[in-house]
Amino acid sequence: MPVLCRPAVAVPEHTITLEDTLDLARTLHAGHEQLPLVLRLIENTGVATRQLVQPIERTLAHPGFEARNTTYETEAKARVPAVVAEALGNAGLQARDIDLIVYVSCTGFMMPSLTAWMINELGFRSDTRQLPIAQLGCAAGGAAINRAHDFCAAYPGANALIVACEFCSLCYQPTDLTVGNLLSNGLFGDAVAAAVVRGSGGTGVLLEHNGCHLVPGTEDWIAYQVRETGFHFMLDKRVPGTMEQLAPALVGLADRHGRDAGRQDFYIIHAGGPRILDDLCKHLDVVPDMFRFSRATLTEHGNIASAVVLDALRRLFDEGGTAPGARGLIAGFGPGITAEISLGSWTDDAPRTPLSPQTPLHSSLTSTAAVAR
Amino acid sequence: MPVLCRPAVAVPEHTITLEDTLDLARTLHAGHEQLPLVLRLIENTGVATRQLVQPIERTLAHPGFEARNTTYETEAKARVPAVVAEALGNAGLQARDIDLIVYVSCTGFMMPSLTAWMINELGFRSDTRQLPIAQLGCAAGGAAINRAHDFCAAYPGANALIVACEFCSLCYQPTDLTVGNLLSNGLFGDAVAAAVVRGSGGTGVLLEHNGCHLVPGTEDWIAYQVRETGFHFMLDKRVPGTMEQLAPALVGLADRHGRDAGRQDFYIIHAGGPRILDDLCKHLDVVPDMFRFSRATLTEHGNIASAVVLDALRRLFDEGGTAPGARGLIAGFGPGITAEISLGSWTDDAPRTPLSPQTPLHSSLTSTAAVAR
Repeated sequence: MPVLCRPAVAVPEHTITLEDTLDLARTLHAGHEQLPLVLRLIENTGVATRQLVQPIERTLAHPGFEARNTTYETEAKARVPAVVAEALGNAGLQARDIDLIVYVSCTGFMMPSLTAWMINELGFRSDTRQLPIAQLGCAAGGAAINRAHDFCAAYPGANALIVACEFCSLCYQPTDLTVGNLLSNGLFGDAVAAAVVRGSGGTGVLLEHNGCHLVPGTEDWIAYQVRETGFHFMLDKRVPGTMEQLAPALVGLADRHGRDAGRQDFYIIHAGGPRILDDLCKHLDVVPDMFRFSRATLTEHGNIASAVVLDALRRLFDEGGTAPGARGLIAGFGPGITAEISLGSWTDDAPRTPLSPQTPLHSSLTSTAAVAR
Repeated sequence: MPVLCRPAVAVPEHTITLEDTLDLARTLHAGHEQLPLVLRLIENTGVATRQLVQPIERTLAHPGFEARNTTYETEAKARVPAVVAEALGNAGLQARDIDLIVYVSCTGFMMPSLTAWMINELGFRSDTRQLPIAQLGCAAGGAAINRAHDFCAAYPGANALIVACEFCSLCYQPTDLTVGNLLSNGLFGDAVAAAVVRGSGGTGVLLEHNGCHLVPGTEDWIAYQVRETGFHFMLDKRVPGTMEQLAPALVGLADRHGRDAGRQDFYIIHAGGPRILDDLCKHLDVVPDMFRFSRATLTEHGNIASAVVLDALRRLFDEGGTAPGARGLIAGFGPGITAEISLGSWTDDAPRTPLSPQTPLHSSLTSTAAVAR
């Protein structure tokens, strides 16, 4: 079965602190009648630092959609290769071993997608499948894991590379002044993350089941307006309360596979905001510490969109992983409102003691690569 | 094995003829020094009629990227439902039987994707997987078939719905005046197409193998420039010659599965333009009539981007299909430059004579739905 290996994550060099963000809000929106509410909401995010691809002065300027998108492309090409190389190394693979690249990003638009450039420049085979996804927003991190899982299930032994490239700061819109916009300006950060789903072998999360759920009637709660000035992020104030509707979807999927969503050994949850984590804790009846990876991501980087789940998972690896067989749940949330959910268990591919001839080999050591190429 | 069922296709009501197009080019670009070349290229496309979502006067106006994108959304919501209903009916399924929606479109951008609206409005289950693809251009038709195939291979018995919604006329850019742009203005058309990939049963193309190929170093040959005015299509004059590099990829994939790419019983080929079809005929050493479905699509509708392969396939069904077991090749081409290739065979699920108890049931009648929900 496919294994989600140790992610690689890189954040940019331009750091902005909570205090910087609050100062900016006070300065830029001094006359905004809901400024006190905005400041309180930003403080409540728990985001201590974020990292941006440009210095704050350039971030706040809007040079136009075309220039923004050019910056997206330049920064992606500059930052993706090292992260991809590290993710491949973490999985013990090389570019030519990859059969599918799932590239998720909702903060810039390129056609052809960056996958074509990656194949040309980073050593991937010319028959590598390309799956670029631009329209699932923050849920795309979970969707990327799940579609990579499906692909490896269809082609046992195949390997998939997931890349999440999110430069949310390039979607800053200085003229958008709703409370939701001003809160978003203090919430989102930039990051590039990548991870390999190995078809066999590897240490990490053995991907066992996946599913998704759309909350009816919430299409416009998280959405882009597409304008001459680029993508304008719309955030409805009801979004933080959606865990009441999404928690049952997590519980239901787990239940259908004989699991208790509230009694997993580890959780990798999209850190959309603090209330999402708090509410989901409550609805699943788990202690807050179980979401420590997601909370740390939010605190240190902000909401880095589709890259959150990979950064949170990276922290589980940094803790030394967990016990083989420990069960976990991964969930990405985003526009739709959609949840992409995965159920897995920890697997450790560390060298084993020699097996006696009678002992069946672990399936991860025997499955053969059978990808149609 | 999954079966690609009869596609449904709808073209809009505003028809423009070749003569209309030539007249417009003569009028709008009277002083263009390469006008004679442009007129000759447009005549050579063999496109007799195209159908647009707006009358020609409104098509030629550019009301801004936001207004264009709003029109995209309005027209998609107006035109997709009937096509989806017909595709479901063709497959003998209902919306609730669908496990994955692959929505491909490069001519408008929505987040959330239309898939969320479809789930909310058209009766799909809330746990239907959403796979929106915006960045594979014309190759997305082939990619949609191949990713649906992969999904059904991962979850035997699952069903996928493919929707290709392309309103190329909404990407008309009056200020783009290269020969490639002016040719494109005479080549592309609008259409909505949909088809179901049934996990079992059904009449159509049994999907057996798929693969893809990227032609190295051609990223900028077919590309969008993303500007304040929207997507600007860039078409390099070397594109029509790429069959020399893509034909070997088709031959190689077929060969690896014991087939001769030049000796298939039917061909469903992306009709990017006349030379693509002519060259591929030559390189595969097949008679032009073997590409009759693609040629008819090009003649009657123009290049309808990712919808071409579904419209061409629809014409094979209109001919009454072909003999069970007849082998075929499907190929989409687009930016990258990427080819998405599928190898299949015709299967007919017409009522069979009663089987004796000793006769094993056809697998399509016995495979059970085993999708993780």
